[in-house]
Amino acid sequence: MDAADVRSTNLAVVLRCVRELAPCSRADIAAATGLNKTTVSSLVSELLKRRLLREVGTAGNRVGRPAVLLTLDGASYAAIGIEVSADYLSAVAVDIAGRTVLSWRRALPGATGSPARALTAVASLTRRVVARAERDGRRVLGLAVALPGTLGPQPTGPGVSPDPTTTAARDWRDADFAADLAAALRLPGLHVETGNDADFGVLAEHRYGQHAGTADLVYLTGGGALGAGLVIDGALRAGSAGYSGEIGHIPVDPGGPACHCGRRGCMEAVAGIAAVIRRAAADPQTPDIGGRPPIAEMEPLIDEITARARAGDPATLDALTGAGRDLGAGIAILANVLDPRIVVLGGHYAELAPWLLPAVAAELRDRAIAAEHGGCRVVASTLGLDAPALGATARILDAVETGRLPGDPHTPARIRGGRAPLDPSRAAPVAGRPALQPPVPTATDGTAR
Amino acid sequence: MDAADVRSTNLAVVLRCVRELAPCSRADIAAATGLNKTTVSSLVSELLKRRLLREVGTAGNRVGRPAVLLTLDGASYAAIGIEVSADYLSAVAVDIAGRTVLSWRRALPGATGSPARALTAVASLTRRVVARAERDGRRVLGLAVALPGTLGPQPTGPGVSPDPTTTAARDWRDADFAADLAAALRLPGLHVETGNDADFGVLAEHRYGQHAGTADLVYLTGGGALGAGLVIDGALRAGSAGYSGEIGHIPVDPGGPACHCGRRGCMEAVAGIAAVIRRAAADPQTPDIGGRPPIAEMEPLIDEITARARAGDPATLDALTGAGRDLGAGIAILANVLDPRIVVLGGHYAELAPWLLPAVAAELRDRAIAAEHGGCRVVASTLGLDAPALGATARILDAVETGRLPGDPHTPARIRGGRAPLDPSRAAPVAGRPALQPPVPTATDGTAR
Ligand SMILES: [Zn+2]
Ligand SMILES: [Zn+2]
Repeated sequence: MDAADVRSTNLAVVLRCVRELAPCSRADIAAATGLNKTTVSSLVSELLKRRLLREVGTAGNRVGRPAVLLTLDGASYAAIGIEVSADYLSAVAVDIAGRTVLSWRRALPGATGSPARALTAVASLTRRVVARAERDGRRVLGLAVALPGTLGPQPTGPGVSPDPTTTAARDWRDADFAADLAAALRLPGLHVETGNDADFGVLAEHRYGQHAGTADLVYLTGGGALGAGLVIDGALRAGSAGYSGEIGHIPVDPGGPACHCGRRGCMEAVAGIAAVIRRAAADPQTPDIGGRPPIAEMEPLIDEITARARAGDPATLDALTGAGRDLGAGIAILANVLDPRIVVLGGHYAELAPWLLPAVAAELRDRAIAAEHGGCRVVASTLGLDAPALGATARILDAVETGRLPGDPHTPARIRGGRAPLDPSRAAPVAGRPALQPPVPTATDGTAR
Repeated sequence: MDAADVRSTNLAVVLRCVRELAPCSRADIAAATGLNKTTVSSLVSELLKRRLLREVGTAGNRVGRPAVLLTLDGASYAAIGIEVSADYLSAVAVDIAGRTVLSWRRALPGATGSPARALTAVASLTRRVVARAERDGRRVLGLAVALPGTLGPQPTGPGVSPDPTTTAARDWRDADFAADLAAALRLPGLHVETGNDADFGVLAEHRYGQHAGTADLVYLTGGGALGAGLVIDGALRAGSAGYSGEIGHIPVDPGGPACHCGRRGCMEAVAGIAAVIRRAAADPQTPDIGGRPPIAEMEPLIDEITARARAGDPATLDALTGAGRDLGAGIAILANVLDPRIVVLGGHYAELAPWLLPAVAAELRDRAIAAEHGGCRVVASTLGLDAPALGATARILDAVETGRLPGDPHTPARIRGGRAPLDPSRAAPVAGRPALQPPVPTATDGTAR
């Protein structure tokens, strides 16, 4: 590790510190980080020069001069997150402090169309977002794209028919979306990466959500396919090959309704968002919306269901309670395997949460081992349908705060593709207390051999 | 972080390096760690003086003097692991390199008896192991005790009756076994901690097993209650309150046999080791061994089953295939949630593995999302019934290798109790590349706020 690396690391340390403490003085930073005041002053000067921090006035001080207060500079940068959903593209841009500065959505048969078509649409949307950010005087820190649901193969078995969404997604993976997008964009130096919606959803909750910072946090997608994003011990855990949280086809009610995978009573078939809607909207007038309806078809049905539930319609309330119970049975499995502190219901689940959550909680009390320890709490997301796109921006900000500073010659922009493990802790410069000299990189957990 | 802390950290770094590379020279260590040669020489001198390393001869060198080779000093220390099982106590001692130097077992109605009685027995066994280690000239690095299965409450619900094993275990937790044991032992300075058998089982596999070092590894207990220990991203993940891996009552076959928890077809009831034995031994002559038979009652039945399976008895083979399928269905749930690389069948499962594994693998192929990516492989443990006790020693060695060096005045011996999170990475001195000065301890993952 050379001096420039050390300085990058410590710049990132100061940046994280200001995010937590802002507004705060140089002395506050020195106290919180253990860095000496001279070093802090030098680091802060550089961050001011790079326009990552700004000064926001002074704080009265009982003795001596008033201290100049610092905060993150919200005006100079933007991180871009895009979600390719089953039927829309959404784009979000946030400033360095994570405040949303842009939120766009456009209809597109995204995940169900061809990769080439989606690529063209994403590239065009990205160019517009970048242009807007630059017109506003912001430099773009990077772009992350949330791709839908399972990028891997679906379960196979007797009578299994392929799911169209997944088939398209598989083409995308083969196409190496990130690299192709970067090539199409022709914006040299722009960092581009991809991830799946559930993983980005949990990153959004972990950085921006009501339970931000919770070390053991699960997010369930409430859009198309049912998936879970897992934060365990403070970091995203995508599994050995990036397939953690693929809970849609866990059997919950083997006597239950047919699932598009060919089995019966899978979690997605009984308690995925489309199944919840189908169960609660069931009446002779309601069209069958099938396994994975477009969001556009879900929204009017959800409005109708919530209206009937608010009016106290017994059939609607019964249906939501039943769906909540099945959802709870599925979440109990997650709770018994992972023992998370919080499970967040994302997407459209959130709108139906007032009627789902009581049954979910009751089922968890019945089935989860640690429930009596106040173990796992299920809550509705407060981030709405933008969560995956927001989580994509969290990915970019995480990278900045772990050392990939903009314009840093030691961390050149990279193009990354595929569904690599997304654990930000892997990129963290220092966990715990540092040594004066480098340790063995291959044995830091004391167990490798 | 003062100079002494830095030195402790770097001593541990060198120790881990030698474990990986031994036999190796000081120059090898300098190359692998990035520490300069003068520092390495000084650190190695201290480790030799502390008798953690020893010199083992020289290696020819094309140019210059032959290099002195170093290895871990296997003669000077012992780490002690004890398992309190349903019907036996076992004790293992390993040297600093993890080689077993002692392995004892004695019958005891451990987990089903009172905490006081078990405590007396464990204290007496510990004193004998410590005395033996000291007679052999070894200093004891610490003691970890594996306690059985679920230490928390069991699922409740209509018709649920308490499980005697668990009731006893709950008394123990209340009794704060580790603190009471330390008090009973009166061996000042001896580090004492406890953990559960599944967690220690996976630590054993992660350090000593055939797939040691696998970053995403699951261990299933094949003794009494069915539980899973989880290593995710290279570290034990015990969950937000220590209850991860409580998979025994995940529903696998709701139309299946009654479980002692009051439901039907739980994973433990259809594919826990007792259920496997019951299914394969089912004939009019076989006594019903109930939900959680003592190991002593399992062993003759397993011998009989393996003999019949080897002879090709169709009923036995069918029963094992059926049990393997149910086990595979349960493991598929774990695989879809966690995407581990390897799942290890522990305890008595290993003896029946030749007949269980084909059906387990077939079921996984059918049900697991990532199976086609060569995702998750299920294998039999090679560590036998000692795995939890061995894993307890791994816990002690992990602590030494992450900075709790013996005789280090900066890391006084502590007495720890309860079932605290056991993640060794939390104690790791430095992950990734270190800064020259301390970072913000509360924001090392870049996400806390
Ligand atoms: Zn299914
Ligand atoms: Zn049960």
